[in-house]
Amino acid sequence: MPNPRFEKLAATLANSPFDAIALNPGPTLSYLTGLNFHLMERPVVLIYAPGQNPAILLPELELQKTKDLPYPLKTYPYGENPAEWAKAFRTALFELDLYGRTIGVEPRRMRVLELRLIENGAPGSHVLSAEKELASLRLCKDAPEIEKMRQAVTIAQNALEATLPQIKIGMSEKEIAAELTIQLLRNGSDPEMPFAPIVSGGPNSANPHASPSERKLQPGDLLVIDWGASYDGYISDLTRTFAIGQIDAEYSKIHEIVQQANAAGRAAGKPGVACAVIDQAARAVIETAGYGTYFTHRTGHGIGMEGHEEPYLRGDNEQLLEAGMAYTVEPGIYLPGRNGVRIEDDMIVTVNGCESLSDLPREIRVVG
Amino acid sequence: MPNPRFEKLAATLANSPFDAIALNPGPTLSYLTGLNFHLMERPVVLIYAPGQNPAILLPELELQKTKDLPYPLKTYPYGENPAEWAKAFRTALFELDLYGRTIGVEPRRMRVLELRLIENGAPGSHVLSAEKELASLRLCKDAPEIEKMRQAVTIAQNALEATLPQIKIGMSEKEIAAELTIQLLRNGSDPEMPFAPIVSGGPNSANPHASPSERKLQPGDLLVIDWGASYDGYISDLTRTFAIGQIDAEYSKIHEIVQQANAAGRAAGKPGVACAVIDQAARAVIETAGYGTYFTHRTGHGIGMEGHEEPYLRGDNEQLLEAGMAYTVEPGIYLPGRNGVRIEDDMIVTVNGCESLSDLPREIRVVG
Repeated sequence: MPNPRFEKLAATLANSPFDAIALNPGPTLSYLTGLNFHLMERPVVLIYAPGQNPAILLPELELQKTKDLPYPLKTYPYGENPAEWAKAFRTALFELDLYGRTIGVEPRRMRVLELRLIENGAPGSHVLSAEKELASLRLCKDAPEIEKMRQAVTIAQNALEATLPQIKIGMSEKEIAAELTIQLLRNGSDPEMPFAPIVSGGPNSANPHASPSERKLQPGDLLVIDWGASYDGYISDLTRTFAIGQIDAEYSKIHEIVQQANAAGRAAGKPGVACAVIDQAARAVIETAGYGTYFTHRTGHGIGMEGHEEPYLRGDNEQLLEAGMAYTVEPGIYLPGRNGVRIEDDMIVTVNGCESLSDLPREIRVVG
Repeated sequence: MPNPRFEKLAATLANSPFDAIALNPGPTLSYLTGLNFHLMERPVVLIYAPGQNPAILLPELELQKTKDLPYPLKTYPYGENPAEWAKAFRTALFELDLYGRTIGVEPRRMRVLELRLIENGAPGSHVLSAEKELASLRLCKDAPEIEKMRQAVTIAQNALEATLPQIKIGMSEKEIAAELTIQLLRNGSDPEMPFAPIVSGGPNSANPHASPSERKLQPGDLLVIDWGASYDGYISDLTRTFAIGQIDAEYSKIHEIVQQANAAGRAAGKPGVACAVIDQAARAVIETAGYGTYFTHRTGHGIGMEGHEEPYLRGDNEQLLEAGMAYTVEPGIYLPGRNGVRIEDDMIVTVNGCESLSDLPREIRVVG
């Protein structure tokens, strides 16, 4: 039985310069094959040239994973000596007739390790970015995919609600992050999390990409929690901001502004609207309130099998939304050295609007 | 104050063809800078040309991380529009005088995304693998590093002991993996785990790289658990195999053989001994017992900030051990479609021998 996702890829490639696609382990490889491999020191590369069976280069000890597939997959296994890699690539690329051809890769997945093996294994070939073609493959989610994302959101929300009562003044960010991770697992997240939770309090909350530290929560802090779950290969990515006891009036004010910006961003999505318009809808609220320079990042990013994927909600992105696209809306205000706020939801574009998969309260809650 | 680790790198590069090194986020970048970045859709690249201050290209929203460093670091921040990337790379590479130079990268870290930005940003440059030079940087662990690895082993061992009493017949591999992950966090692992635990029972245990599945434990199964913790950037990686109730006599026998192979591999390490010798010491036990074809992988791999790093314990690796090197010894026997065994410990080479950081019982234990 042919694999319909490879046929979808073949259709995408028909209007492209690519004679074949070469993929490292990652969501696109998993989406196409149903197989999961880790990116490791040994190269694993799927090669697909439309009109031929897909092929995969992999260590012998991974061969077992390719048994009993419901579609044909040609395997090129190699042994434990890295000296065997070059020959395996040469053989595969020769048998696939890819010498001198144009081969597309994912520039954010393909490493120099595999790139050089392909370039040297297929003399005269050109290896170019097929980012656009490959992103389009997973861009619009179908109903089973949306159901998995919904499940990943539910798990994340339940995990946060189970964690909040345990948060106390004096707890460190790391302790809260560990407890939240435990609750994610208890509530059904796959063990491989989409990302380690961000738990940042006080001045650390003014750093949008902070790692949880040993800093202990203090009265008057804002506490930003940015977390997600993984369910059957699909993920969620949410953020809420909390008050530790009584907070400064300005912090209440910036939370209120971000909440309005989040609402404006969530309301703006529907088929035919440009990504830039969503970004502007959220950003305008913050700019009008006078905090524009403290909203230092884009309004959101696509979400699905990856934590960050297309479409990106940036002011320069004229890409139009379509039903089935999924993205985060996550405006923030960050006052350097003081405190920060971010509120993030996961959206799905519907046929005539959009829906937030997440429904946790967005108003500021006092914890601790 | 200059950063001594950059000076160590400068010394390594003095006898190399490289005018500079360019690094993506990962252990080597963290080792040199003390900074942690995720590999994401936005490029973050550290460039070091000996004799000049190190430089880093990064998104504006990550700039905060580079404040208050105890050594000079030149930053090249860019905004949210990817169109800015090329200019930032061109500027940095021009100011570092790297046009037409030889630039070394880690082929297993550097992606096509950053490679193309470097190649296009520094006309005439050659980007080559500096794997050997860079691996040597982190190859021998110093006392504080070994202490962190010891801590990562202790956390992993305590987590497993807390998990074992909960394992029952009828539990799924996924449930056990989730519980083990919870215990890793409760026992002090950093939230970012080195890898998701492998929990594989019965026929799945015959696949060395299995992912935890919905399969439920059955009497007579072997159960392979391969897990690790992370502590302050350093990791552990252990494996033990358990019996679910009464097992087949052949399974007891292969466990006994693997236990002897593990002991032989652990005993063989000391300064001046080749990696191949350790591999042979473990492999010979399994081959002599007649199961050589069922030991399908190398005996072990280096360990430290990465789950897999140099030195690799393969039959073809003539690299000589030195004090401070760290590696796993993990022989296995895998009977396809039936059951498998693996026993893995984490070793440190000492001045006149080697030490196992792990001391969990290795004989087969009955659980369930």
